[in-house]
Amino acid sequence: MNGWHETEVRVRYAETDQMGIAHHANYLIWFEAGRSDLCRARGFSYKDMEEQENALMVVAESYVRYKSPAFYEDILTIKTAISEIRSRSIRFSYEINRGSDGALIAEGETLHLVTDKQQKVRTIPESYKRLLTEDDLAFPAEQVPR
Amino acid sequence: MNGWHETEVRVRYAETDQMGIAHHANYLIWFEAGRSDLCRARGFSYKDMEEQENALMVVAESYVRYKSPAFYEDILTIKTAISEIRSRSIRFSYEINRGSDGALIAEGETLHLVTDKQQKVRTIPESYKRLLTEDDLAFPAEQVPR
Amino acid sequence: MNGWHETEVRVRYAETDQMGIAHHANYLIWFEAGRSDLCRARGFSYKDMEEQENALMVVAESYVRYKSPAFYEDILTIKTAISEIRSRSIRFSYEINRGSDGALIAEGETLHLVTDKQQKVRTIPESYKRLLTEDDLAFPAEQVPR
Amino acid sequence: MNGWHETEVRVRYAETDQMGIAHHANYLIWFEAGRSDLCRARGFSYKDMEEQENALMVVAESYVRYKSPAFYEDILTIKTAISEIRSRSIRFSYEINRGSDGALIAEGETLHLVTDKQQKVRTIPESYKRLLTEDDLAFPAEQVPR
Repeated sequence: MNGWHETEVRVRYAETDQMGIAHHANYLIWFEAGRSDLCRARGFSYKDMEEQENALMVVAESYVRYKSPAFYEDILTIKTAISEIRSRSIRFSYEINRGSDGALIAEGETLHLVTDKQQKVRTIPESYKRLLTEDDLAFPAEQVPR
Repeated sequence: MNGWHETEVRVRYAETDQMGIAHHANYLIWFEAGRSDLCRARGFSYKDMEEQENALMVVAESYVRYKSPAFYEDILTIKTAISEIRSRSIRFSYEINRGSDGALIAEGETLHLVTDKQQKVRTIPESYKRLLTEDDLAFPAEQVPR
Repeated sequence: MNGWHETEVRVRYAETDQMGIAHHANYLIWFEAGRSDLCRARGFSYKDMEEQENALMVVAESYVRYKSPAFYEDILTIKTAISEIRSRSIRFSYEINRGSDGALIAEGETLHLVTDKQQKVRTIPESYKRLLTEDDLAFPAEQVPR
Repeated sequence: MNGWHETEVRVRYAETDQMGIAHHANYLIWFEAGRSDLCRARGFSYKDMEEQENALMVVAESYVRYKSPAFYEDILTIKTAISEIRSRSIRFSYEINRGSDGALIAEGETLHLVTDKQQKVRTIPESYKRLLTEDDLAFPAEQVPR
């Protein structure tokens, strides 16, 4: 298992609901932001995989455990890691913490199947698999291309 | 100008914010639902235009006047009409009312340019223009295909 | 376990992503729409519980298994049931099917804790528990108050 | 008119639609992120105004001109300024540019009325008005509290 990658988001007003907390559907969007960032840190983009390799990472399962509510303007750190990689699937794990007090906000997992644009399951392109599994990040954190 | 087309939505919990009212960005999504419905009532779908004619209706302007807040579970009626149609653009007008008390919730407008998939402005396909401008709905309300 | 309650949604354009399918975070919003509807069918509203009883149903866990993609304009049926009810928690189960071909789109579960407005866990108000557990719906489907 | 305040967002996958571009409703959410940031830079938060002063900034009008599409992973700069401040209303102006090529993505405006929690229009609390109108930012950009 590779190291955690960290992404920061600030809770938007639009993400709150009338309970006064961040609505629970946003957690999947934040997980996705973490996943995108992890891929970018490893030297590629979802977009490249879609356009150049006809390979889509389709979400097959999602699981979230909500531990503590998040509020408007909270700065959250999403930690993302690849917890399992197989020939045709990838599992990511997540942990969200609040910056100000370190509170654990949520934990979760998503399982992804790799498919082509016709939604047929296929193997992960070899070059991407290598980027995702190698021990060291393609780029040290401070050199991640923006 | 053609008649109004009516679409009903119920305010979702996820659409509220911590002010306890429906967040203002959702109004554009409701307008879009009204617009989709109006097109469907006239015998075609956004999807068809995109897939069969390489014609996209890109939003060029949006304007919303928020008159009265909408709340969780409110049933809203979105009235949509085509207010202007030119060779390469279409303007839609909207009015949102609450079912229970008839309150005017919002009014608005969107202007759309017709482009191809490379984002180049093009003329509206003739067959769609006809469907959008003819006086009578392609289908009476109760026969709109689902 | 009580019977399934059915809710219909039509996939909105705003709910699609660049993969051309409904984005996976929307499923939690659709589940919530199903849950709201089930409560309403049993004679009460989230809103009442929040305002009159100082009881919030906070999401503690969510789980979704995505079986088949949903597309723009698809009409989906969300089936919702209460799968477990305890003194301070409620578990809901969901199944989403597409109307046109009956395809299974997704299955899932959410677990909810009942808290007060200070986020302290509390027991479910007795009157609501009764409405949620009684064998027969408070209102037959065709008489559900709107 | 005060200076522009700048906020950066990266386009999320969830924000794209099947046209392959950022959905137009997100622009209002980005404007709001810019507005929140401008307030924070001036030494206060929406949250404070709501909780301590019973003053809500309700959106009364929104206007967006979409100039060029934004894509997944684009880094966008939202420039926000207060263009008019009256006793009971505030007007904000916005401009969105893409970082990589400087392209103008959108321009817009929102008009806000200040109300109490019962939705009655009221005057802007004097202390907030001062923070919003004084020539110099309450905090230099690099000292904005997080």
